[in-house]
Amino acid sequence: MKNPIRIGILGCGNVGSALVYLVAQEPDEFTVEKIAVNRIEASREPHIDISKLTADSSSVVVDQNVEIVVELIGGITVAKDLIELALKNKKPVVTANKELMAKHGTELLRIAKDNGVDLLFEASVCGAIPIVRLLKESLVGEEITRIVGILNGTTNYILTKMTEDRLDFEQALQMAQKLGYAEKDPTADIKGYDAGAKAAILTSSAFITFVDPDSVFIEGIADITLQDIDFAIKNGMVIKLVAVIEKLRNEISSELQISIRVHPMMIKISHPLASVRNSYNAVFIEGEAIGEMMLYGKGAGGLPTASAVLGDILDAKHNMSLNTFNRFAEPRLIPIYDQNKLTSEFYIAVDVADEPGVLAKVAQIFGSNRISISSMEQNGFGQNARLVFFTHSAMEADMKETVNQLSELESVKKVGSVIRVMV
Amino acid sequence: MKNPIRIGILGCGNVGSALVYLVAQEPDEFTVEKIAVNRIEASREPHIDISKLTADSSSVVVDQNVEIVVELIGGITVAKDLIELALKNKKPVVTANKELMAKHGTELLRIAKDNGVDLLFEASVCGAIPIVRLLKESLVGEEITRIVGILNGTTNYILTKMTEDRLDFEQALQMAQKLGYAEKDPTADIKGYDAGAKAAILTSSAFITFVDPDSVFIEGIADITLQDIDFAIKNGMVIKLVAVIEKLRNEISSELQISIRVHPMMIKISHPLASVRNSYNAVFIEGEAIGEMMLYGKGAGGLPTASAVLGDILDAKHNMSLNTFNRFAEPRLIPIYDQNKLTSEFYIAVDVADEPGVLAKVAQIFGSNRISISSMEQNGFGQNARLVFFTHSAMEADMKETVNQLSELESVKKVGSVIRVMV
Repeated sequence: MKNPIRIGILGCGNVGSALVYLVAQEPDEFTVEKIAVNRIEASREPHIDISKLTADSSSVVVDQNVEIVVELIGGITVAKDLIELALKNKKPVVTANKELMAKHGTELLRIAKDNGVDLLFEASVCGAIPIVRLLKESLVGEEITRIVGILNGTTNYILTKMTEDRLDFEQALQMAQKLGYAEKDPTADIKGYDAGAKAAILTSSAFITFVDPDSVFIEGIADITLQDIDFAIKNGMVIKLVAVIEKLRNEISSELQISIRVHPMMIKISHPLASVRNSYNAVFIEGEAIGEMMLYGKGAGGLPTASAVLGDILDAKHNMSLNTFNRFAEPRLIPIYDQNKLTSEFYIAVDVADEPGVLAKVAQIFGSNRISISSMEQNGFGQNARLVFFTHSAMEADMKETVNQLSELESVKKVGSVIRVMV
Repeated sequence: MKNPIRIGILGCGNVGSALVYLVAQEPDEFTVEKIAVNRIEASREPHIDISKLTADSSSVVVDQNVEIVVELIGGITVAKDLIELALKNKKPVVTANKELMAKHGTELLRIAKDNGVDLLFEASVCGAIPIVRLLKESLVGEEITRIVGILNGTTNYILTKMTEDRLDFEQALQMAQKLGYAEKDPTADIKGYDAGAKAAILTSSAFITFVDPDSVFIEGIADITLQDIDFAIKNGMVIKLVAVIEKLRNEISSELQISIRVHPMMIKISHPLASVRNSYNAVFIEGEAIGEMMLYGKGAGGLPTASAVLGDILDAKHNMSLNTFNRFAEPRLIPIYDQNKLTSEFYIAVDVADEPGVLAKVAQIFGSNRISISSMEQNGFGQNARLVFFTHSAMEADMKETVNQLSELESVKKVGSVIRVMV
């Protein structure tokens, strides 16, 4: 007869409820001792045993019968206090909390280490995709050079609908909201903050460093137009919101630095990331020995996320049985690479008054900022003329200055999207 | 000061040489004690320390200074004896040997267990893709329903060249041989045997069972024509050689069974597997909680495979430090599902003499075998007429009988490719 592991759960929303469902399939392995909820009287799915609910979340953490604490509350304040309390009570913690791990992961991992217990967080990045485990175990000896991830399912869904069904951004967003992929206030997703927090966690795991999520360079997708999408398709590409994490050397000091950025990118349709559709996530990894590798899967949702939590619970249980815990190497401080010094190929759309000489003026600005144009196309005529450019590799600072100067040209009505192109 | 782990390597070909290169990057972590080779005098890359070479492979295995044995000889006989000897000497073994693990994996894992040491084999399936670890760790609580894998890089390269560069099969094979992707005798790859062995290992890992690789249903790609490829493209699909592993219930006894098959398949271009190009591998997994997941990466090559070996070495080392080893659950016997009873949609090409009434005769044979046609198209006229059909879901046995009867029709010159379509 096995001794089932006794779990205490903080939070019983979508993921918590799915977790209770999953562990109930294996009664020999697990038993749920207590579930902390905000409102005991709220209606629950029938598989939730309401006798286990409590409104006193710290009682779950300190309960002598609870062996592993699962934190599914989200947010930074309460969750952090409860996780600290659990760790200091020598209880392993499994969390799906991306904001918290992005902001305070290093600190909490140190507390876990000091108390000799696990703090596992696979579910905090990309739901069912086991990227944290992959980085910590399979790729531990690997020299990773670049990671490109589609880390946000909402924006990927919106961009897929724009590309495949020719909805405009607002229509696609409304559809995502109707289907529950986007929240009422979609800011965190469409502005790229959600992807930025996940990128910070990935960076910490992949490069054993600490990155403040506020230091991630972020651009969202709200300004992408159907014209941009069409132009990408015409050139054999799709537009994706990606997080790019890259090891680079400072060009003067040759110091190792790291670039972390979230922004839309045009990607060739033959690239594996281009086939990541709808609300799926994927992480594309480049390394010296492995070459290229990609993980693809559901980034959110109750069952997929609960499945990742369950994997961590099993890991924590295994470690407990061996009287050990996952030791993370001490993070190094790796400086952030100056975004202005990055180079990239760019797509840029400029709405102009279609007058003689306008192209010359525009081209002159590109040239004077050391940006060379690889192709140009004019769409529309007269008052609706739009010039669309692809550039050769150019420096971010130069592109910024080009956009500024273009905006000041009298014959330029508007500088539209500026989108980086993956090479 | 760390105590580097002392490795003994059996075999110093492509992967062995790359492994020596990788471990030399971390001299605090690893040291290579001895390397067994066939011919000491053969020329080696400069990073191989020839003073460590020996022609006596069992001396490596029994050497008191060797803590972990890495088997990279390949083949079944010698490798099996050496691995057994190592395990019985209580030494963990890491192997990249797919034939051996497919054929004798269960037996060897039992010997490892009896001796309380690890036998790890990540590198034996899909090179750098950490699919074994994923199945054993992240997905251990998951109810996997189906796995579809592109497990052979050579055939995927050939099919990619046929699709993208319109080479015929022979031309694409020659190109693969010139580039070193295909061997001089390409039988094991193009007939599907290599993919079949990997499918057997995957099945054992995913479903905790033992599958004799000889019981895997196998069809290769040698008969696929450019016409088939063109027809796939025209219908928004590509042709891939896939391994399908599926849990099914016997329709009478409702007993749990498993279907394992390797064959070409038409896959919609929007499916993530369709974007796996050239010599890359991928494993697409469907499960009840995770939904869909895919791993993509290099399936072969010195460095990618050595990288997987290194991951296993680190794992074995970690376990040794905890006085433990990976315990695999005792395999169950799961019967193989009768291939004849499987259902699928089919593509089938039939070369006919273009005479009045021929379509009626052909259609009559489909109908009398309970196969309903979803679309039909005639290409060419007169003596070069070809009828191409897509069927609705049909049973394998019925399709086999249909092909037999069609072949006997006087107006049918040849039944060409019969390719399953993924739904």
